Formats: sequence, structure tokens, C-alpha cells
Amino acid sequence: MKKTDGGVCAPKGYKANGINCGIKADKDKKDLSLIVSDVPANAAGIYTLNLVKGAPIVVTQNHIKDGCAQAVIANSGNANTCNADGIEIAEKMTELAAGATGLNASDFMVASTGVIGQPLNIKPVKDGVAELAAGLSYDGGNAAAQAIMTTDTYSKESAVEFEVGGKVCKIGGMAKGSGMIHPNMATMLVFITTDAAVSSEMLQKAISCDVQKTFNMMSVDGDTSTNDTLVIMANGLAGNEEIKAEGEDFDAFMKALNSVTVDLCKMVAGDGEGASKLLECSVTGAKTEEDAKKTAKSVICSSLVKAAMFGADANWGRVLCAIGYAGADVDVDKVEVSFVSKGGEVKVCENGAGIEFSEEIAKKVLVEKEIDIVIDLHDGDGAATAWGCDLTYDYVKINGDYRS
Amino acid sequence: MKKTDGGVCAPKGYKANGINCGIKADKDKKDLSLIVSDVPANAAGIYTLNLVKGAPIVVTQNHIKDGCAQAVIANSGNANTCNADGIEIAEKMTELAAGATGLNASDFMVASTGVIGQPLNIKPVKDGVAELAAGLSYDGGNAAAQAIMTTDTYSKESAVEFEVGGKVCKIGGMAKGSGMIHPNMATMLVFITTDAAVSSEMLQKAISCDVQKTFNMMSVDGDTSTNDTLVIMANGLAGNEEIKAEGEDFDAFMKALNSVTVDLCKMVAGDGEGASKLLECSVTGAKTEEDAKKTAKSVICSSLVKAAMFGADANWGRVLCAIGYAGADVDVDKVEVSFVSKGGEVKVCENGAGIEFSEEIAKKVLVEKEIDIVIDLHDGDGAATAWGCDLTYDYVKINGDYRS
Repeated sequence: MKKTDGGVCAPKGYKANGINCGIKADKDKKDLSLIVSDVPANAAGIYTLNLVKGAPIVVTQNHIKDGCAQAVIANSGNANTCNADGIEIAEKMTELAAGATGLNASDFMVASTGVIGQPLNIKPVKDGVAELAAGLSYDGGNAAAQAIMTTDTYSKESAVEFEVGGKVCKIGGMAKGSGMIHPNMATMLVFITTDAAVSSEMLQKAISCDVQKTFNMMSVDGDTSTNDTLVIMANGLAGNEEIKAEGEDFDAFMKALNSVTVDLCKMVAGDGEGASKLLECSVTGAKTEEDAKKTAKSVICSSLVKAAMFGADANWGRVLCAIGYAGADVDVDKVEVSFVSKGGEVKVCENGAGIEFSEEIAKKVLVEKEIDIVIDLHDGDGAATAWGCDLTYDYVKINGDYRS
Repeated sequence: MKKTDGGVCAPKGYKANGINCGIKADKDKKDLSLIVSDVPANAAGIYTLNLVKGAPIVVTQNHIKDGCAQAVIANSGNANTCNADGIEIAEKMTELAAGATGLNASDFMVASTGVIGQPLNIKPVKDGVAELAAGLSYDGGNAAAQAIMTTDTYSKESAVEFEVGGKVCKIGGMAKGSGMIHPNMATMLVFITTDAAVSSEMLQKAISCDVQKTFNMMSVDGDTSTNDTLVIMANGLAGNEEIKAEGEDFDAFMKALNSVTVDLCKMVAGDGEGASKLLECSVTGAKTEEDAKKTAKSVICSSLVKAAMFGADANWGRVLCAIGYAGADVDVDKVEVSFVSKGGEVKVCENGAGIEFSEEIAKKVLVEKEIDIVIDLHDGDGAATAWGCDLTYDYVKINGDYRS
């Protein structure tokens, strides 16, 4: 397995594009995104657990009931959520995209991201969709990834090449994150493509398993968005025998998928709203995997830990505190905590109590851009990793007046 | 029932004092607090649910096992938590206070608040406790309240006068809050005194019921502290017949207690770290009280709602989003949301969708210092209220480098 370029266009037979159609006032910011497979693909999706669901989710769920899809149309700048005409508008988006590409509306998955509760004007989509379709290309992955950004500071893409049954396959993905990012479909939008042949049932199984260890283990601000969507298409153009059950081929596919999703996860967490650092919390020695997960998530979600990391302050007591309220079965008297980064490593707590450490070395570790909070609970074999970011002035600034 | 002055010294027979003994380097900041009842009192306590518990909690629980106490000794500037010698030091604090006041160490409850995981040096307490005891007075409530402050910007006291069985009684309280404030013993330290005669069993019942609707319905930053403690003493000097069971007298006591705790709750929430506004979320029309509680807490805890309130931005979509992931049984299509303050009232959402409203009026409502987020779920009779604060630059500033 090796990394490759091209994002969602890395696998065979996927074109993409992104343009500004006028949903965002700033013409330099793309806001309409399109991904199209040359041939019909098997498809699966996972969506937010929030009771308030964006209208596009309802339409996408309906369109891929048959396990098939061929394209994704998505916009940024407006979430099309909590609007009386939301479903109608989301359907209209798929119809307009169908008209411009010669496909059927039911072949389209649709997603929206941006402000909630403001009607989405369909006119810019109507006016722009012909240009969007005309510009589709096999190297349009980055343009498409840019067009789903909201407060993201960079576009997020990842792709790998791997082998299934002697055939070279690829899997590519793009994501947007930034705010309202929290476990239980942490990411707002993730689109994944592959040229491997995988049945829609196994696709669903693959993403359902994978998100438990990736997007559901990530938090920016504890808010579970209304529009979280992860969809995947598998068009089979790599020519492998279709993966229809568990086994060696499925394992190879899962491994490649996980490589792409972990990559996207880290990018989304590290680019959390206002974030200056990517935080990773690795827990080992837990009684069960579930205890490890709860512990890792609790630490990553603590505002006080996040703020301490922003200040490069080795305030490990806050880590202990977050472990203590995680709801996990933990013997706090056995806990060991270290901070690790490119700048070095410093152990700060052993047997649940502080130990002497060099503040100078701690500072060197914590001023880095990627910090790993390493926790050993010394109480079993359960392990888990969670991702998040620091809490900064800019998070407050960005969210203090997002609508204006 | 009417409000009165004096805080914990408002009821008969309570002396208090607070001094700087040198735990905090700044001599102008008090750090050692003492409350003493003239006579032995019935006592009860409630403590953090965090698995990591401050050493003073262990000692306090042990000392009031018999339902009796006569005094509280507390320090700020160091939480005496996650230290190998924590319990020994907490015991020592009660012994030193006993020596200075002529009481027994086992008559003392003890509490500490401040940074976690740094050994608490007993020397300043040893050196200062004689001065602390010598300065005890019947109007020392405010000095005592000041001495438990950490990042609090003002001391928090409340007291009321009420009648039980024809006797005038008083109940007074003090609290410190600021950071690590979250439901399930939200407050770090709350000390309550009363001259009403109440058995220790009924005291325990009273505070256990009351916190469900007060301190457990408040959040500043989602972090449940390791040292949260609420203790109450009832010395019986008001001369009423001891309240030993439910009934009219107990109801009158509960009502008075609730008036003091809601007051303290609002002060703690409004003075959350970096807070510029007190937020109140009132939920009605829920299927059950539990659903109302979950909804109110979820809205109060949302970083995005908190940041929007800081920016006086009527971003009601974030309120809907937080309702949606609250884990409550809610029909999102029935939800109604208004913002209310001294500046007026503005309805922003009806039947789960946005309605037209004047941004000008909304701004007028939201620039105020106390904002009520009023939610009607139109689905039953369950109601609840939660308190919190906005998320500001200063929260990040305060917590980015707390230890230095």
C-alpha cells in the first residue's frame, strides 16, 4: 500500500470539479462541488445521529436505498437545514445536476454545509451547474475539495494505492470539517471513491466499522453537526473480483480505507476552527477497548486540556481530571501520562500522581504543532486513539459572529 | 421569605474569616478560609462524581460520617489532588485548625481548590491558622468567601430569612466556581449554613434533591472538577422543632435552600472563566422532566451557542443543533425558540424552522448581560432550567497558561 495523489480522482473513472456559483458572496471562494463516476457504482453512506438532520441527508438516503449511485453534488455556504422547503431544494439540486451531466437525479447523492436555518436559494446552483459539469476532469479532485470548505483553512484530500486479488486498486477521499465536529459522525462531509469492486453491503460494513475508530474518535468542539455525511462509491473499474464477503480482499480494502480516513481525520482535527495544534490522545492498558475509547475521547474533548495545549502548558492535572470523568472503568492510581512530539518526550504522571519533570523539556515538547498525549492505564489490553485540536482565541473569534 | 445579608454568617451562631497565609504569592489575595459554628451542627455533603477525587473530599467524608460537624477549613491556590501525601496534608489542615479553635479535628470539614497535582505545602497553613482563628467574627462571611476564590472575579454569597414552625430561621451560603464547572456537581466549593434545626438525614435529602435542579444544571466548560464539594451545617440555634421528616417545615426549608442555591448558581455561571454573559436556558413542553433537563443542559454546554452569545449573534440554528444531539426524546418539528433579556424578546424559530425576525431587535436582546434562551418543545409538561455562560477570548487566555 502506498500514498498517491489526486484525492477522489485518484481511482480510475472519477471526474470532479468545483466552482463559485454565487452562494458565497466572495467569488474567489468555490461553493459548488461535483464528483461523477464514469460508470454506475455501488454506494453506501453514514449520517449524523443528530435528531435535526439536514434536508440533503434525507434525499441522499432515499437515492441510495438501492445501493447504487454515480455522483455527488454538494454546496458550501448554506447547510439547507431547518428550512421549510429544504427537501424540495435538495431534490432540485440533484435534478439540476442530472440535467447538466446526462445522468438521472436518483444517481446523485447530495450534501450541503454552512449556516443552518437560512433558506438556500436555488438560483445560483441553477445558473452555475452547466459550467460546473462542463469543467469536470480527471484531475478535478482538488477543485471539488475546495468547494466544500467553510471555515476550513485548507482543503483535505488523501489517496492510497493497494492490491486486491492481484489487481492494483485505489481509494481516494476528500473531507471538510472545522466546526461542529464531535464523535458520532464527527466530520461534516467526507466523500470517498474507489475503483475496487465492492458490493454495497460490504461497503456499508466497511465504513460502519471504520468510522468507529476514525471519525467517531475525533472532536473539535463537542457539537455534533446536523449535516454530517460520509458517502463512498465503488465503481469496480480496477477489475478485481467483487468483494462480497469478509476475507483477505476485504481486509486489504479495510486497511486502505483506514489509511485514507485516518489521514482525513487528522487533517480535519488539525484544521479545527481556530486550531493551532493537532492533538492525538493514545490510550493503552485499558480494561477494554470501550474504556480506552471513552478515556481518549474525554481527554480530547476537555476544554481545559485544549486550552492548556494552546498555551504549551504541561498541566497534566487536567488530563487526569478528564480521565476521571470519562465514565470509563479506570483505576486512577495506576495512570501514567506522557506528552510526546517532534520536540521530544516528557513523562509527567505515574501511579496517578505527579512526578518531577523538566519544565524546559516540557515546553520544547508542547510548542510543537502536533502533540501526542500518551496514556497508559496499566490495567489491561484495551487501546484506542482519538484526535482533536487546541482551543484558541480564534475559535471564539470565528464563532462569535459566524453569520455576518 | 426574604433576602438578607451576611452570607454564611447570616444565620445565628456562625463566625467566619479569611486571610492570606502565603499559599498564593500575591499577599492581597486571601487563600485560607474558616467557618465555625458556636455549637455542634448536623451536617451533610455532596461531592464530585469524578473518579479522581481531591484528598480533602476523602477526609471530609470520613469526618462527617456521624452526621455532625462544627466547622469548615478551606484553602485556595492548590487543590491538594493527585498528590502522594494528599490525605495526610488534608488531615493536618483539620488538626491545625482544631488546635487554633479549641475544637476537635473530626469536627472539621476540609476543602481545597486550585491547581491539581502540585504538592500542597502545609507550612503557610501552620503559620497562618492562629491569625485566621483570632480574626473569626459574626460578620466574617465575605472574608471567608473571598478566601476560596481562584479565577473568580467576585466573591459569591447569598442568604435568606424564612419561617419554620413560627420561628424565624436563616440560611446562608458562599460558593466559588469559575473553571471546571459542569453538571454532576458543577460547583467546585459551596458551603451552606443554617440556624434551622434539621436532622442530618433530612439535610442530606434536601441537598441531594436540590442540586439536581441547581448545581447539576449548570455548566461553564464541560469539565467536571475533581474537588467539587457542597457541604451544609444546621446548628439549630433558631429554636424550631427539629425537622426530621418531610412535611410543611421541610418544604419551607427546601424553598429557602433553593433560593440560596439558585442565587449562587447564577453567580457561579455568570462568573464562569472569561464569561461576559450569564446564559439561562428554560425548557418547557418536554415529554418528561428528564427530557427537559437533557435539552436545557445540551444547549447551555454547546461551545457554538456560547460563542454566538458572546458575539450577540442570533444564530438559533446552533440552538436547534444542540437540541438535536441532546439525547432527549424531542420532536424537532415542534420546537419553538426565543431569546429574551432586559433588552426585549425575539422569537426566531417555530415548528423547528426559522421565522422572519428583526436582526435589529435581536441585537438589542443579545447585547445584554443576562440572556434567557427560551425553548418550548410543545410536546408535554416537562420543564427544566440550566445556567451557563458565553465562551470568550478570556476563557482561552485564562486557561492557556493557568499554572504560571
